Amino acid sequence: MSRARVHNFSISLDGFGTGEGLSQDAPFGHAGQRLHEWMIATRWWDPGGSGGVDDAFAQLHGVGIGAEIMGAGKFGPPGWHEDPGWEGWWGPNPPFHTPVFVLTHFPRPSIEMEGGTVFHFIDASPAEALETARTAADGQDVRIGGGPTTVRDFLAAGLVDHLHVVVVPILLGRGVRLWEGLEGLEADYRVEATSSPRGVTHVTFTRSST
Amino acid sequence: MSRARVHNFSISLDGFGTGEGLSQDAPFGHAGQRLHEWMIATRWWDPGGSGGVDDAFAQLHGVGIGAEIMGAGKFGPPGWHEDPGWEGWWGPNPPFHTPVFVLTHFPRPSIEMEGGTVFHFIDASPAEALETARTAADGQDVRIGGGPTTVRDFLAAGLVDHLHVVVVPILLGRGVRLWEGLEGLEADYRVEATSSPRGVTHVTFTRSST
Repeated sequence: MSRARVHNFSISLDGFGTGEGLSQDAPFGHAGQRLHEWMIATRWWDPGGSGGVDDAFAQLHGVGIGAEIMGAGKFGPPGWHEDPGWEGWWGPNPPFHTPVFVLTHFPRPSIEMEGGTVFHFIDASPAEALETARTAADGQDVRIGGGPTTVRDFLAAGLVDHLHVVVVPILLGRGVRLWEGLEGLEADYRVEATSSPRGVTHVTFTRSST
Repeated sequence: MSRARVHNFSISLDGFGTGEGLSQDAPFGHAGQRLHEWMIATRWWDPGGSGGVDDAFAQLHGVGIGAEIMGAGKFGPPGWHEDPGWEGWWGPNPPFHTPVFVLTHFPRPSIEMEGGTVFHFIDASPAEALETARTAADGQDVRIGGGPTTVRDFLAAGLVDHLHVVVVPILLGRGVRLWEGLEGLEADYRVEATSSPRGVTHVTFTRSST
């Protein structure tokens, strides 16, 4: 069974998955890189990085994944849909290497990048997008790539089989919260928490029924 | 130096320190006991409980404490100030064994309980209350006992030297949030996170300057 998985999704201790004031120069707004420093310090990101528990979690990001779904807010800064030349943040060879379905109210032609990444732009509900991505994933799993609103929407729709959230011990105070309207979510999952020597806490929600 | 300390303060993964719908029958509202099951399972609470890391943290609750400050919302259900006979939730011998300063806009005469607990009722700012409690603590530390609004007010005023928060992996969805208006709080503290085999995560904020 093809699962829908969220990996390496970082939030602040007060629950924000991104800061305020997103722009081309500040993809995470006032949060800067603070939500992702733990990831940049792993071997997965940097060959000189650490191979401990943070790395073990980070490495799972791509394993068995055949497609990604991301929200419009992850693909570019506010207003990117008005720029016909915008091809994402990641340069000519993005780190996905699979089809990527960008949820947007402004669909445009697909873009084939180097390294196997193909961006498709679709205006669809979470369930419809997941069905489309599953077909493209050809039996493999689908990663729900963020941002916080997109992850929350897929969780609220009961579509996520594996959720890996990384709680970073900072208080952002403002931005976009992951946990809104998800009361009782844990009832459908097996939940574990693992703190790392770096100080972040990996929280996993795993659905056993699939 | 007498420190102001918060211990065993439980919040849900989405940041709520208490649920919605507080009443005499439901001191934590729809949260029920779920925020405190980890504590009830420790040897500190129950002689038959576990002596692991959850217990190690829990035991510090009383060590070196000479007084407590609590908010009106911890002392009783909404409206308790209209009941002249209300003496708290804890029976004739409350588990404090020190002076306890209850912050309320409706002061009343002090109540001397068994076991050394004396409830005092004061209408004061966090800084004034802390000064009063420090005098009563006679050189020992002062515990800021909650609830979430009171802890948040003392944090916002920069008055807390040691904060021990326990993140319980449930999503309450509604209630009173601890983390509001505390952006950047971590800058003043050394922060550590420790997950326990039971699945909760102990997060400590320790101020090194005192």
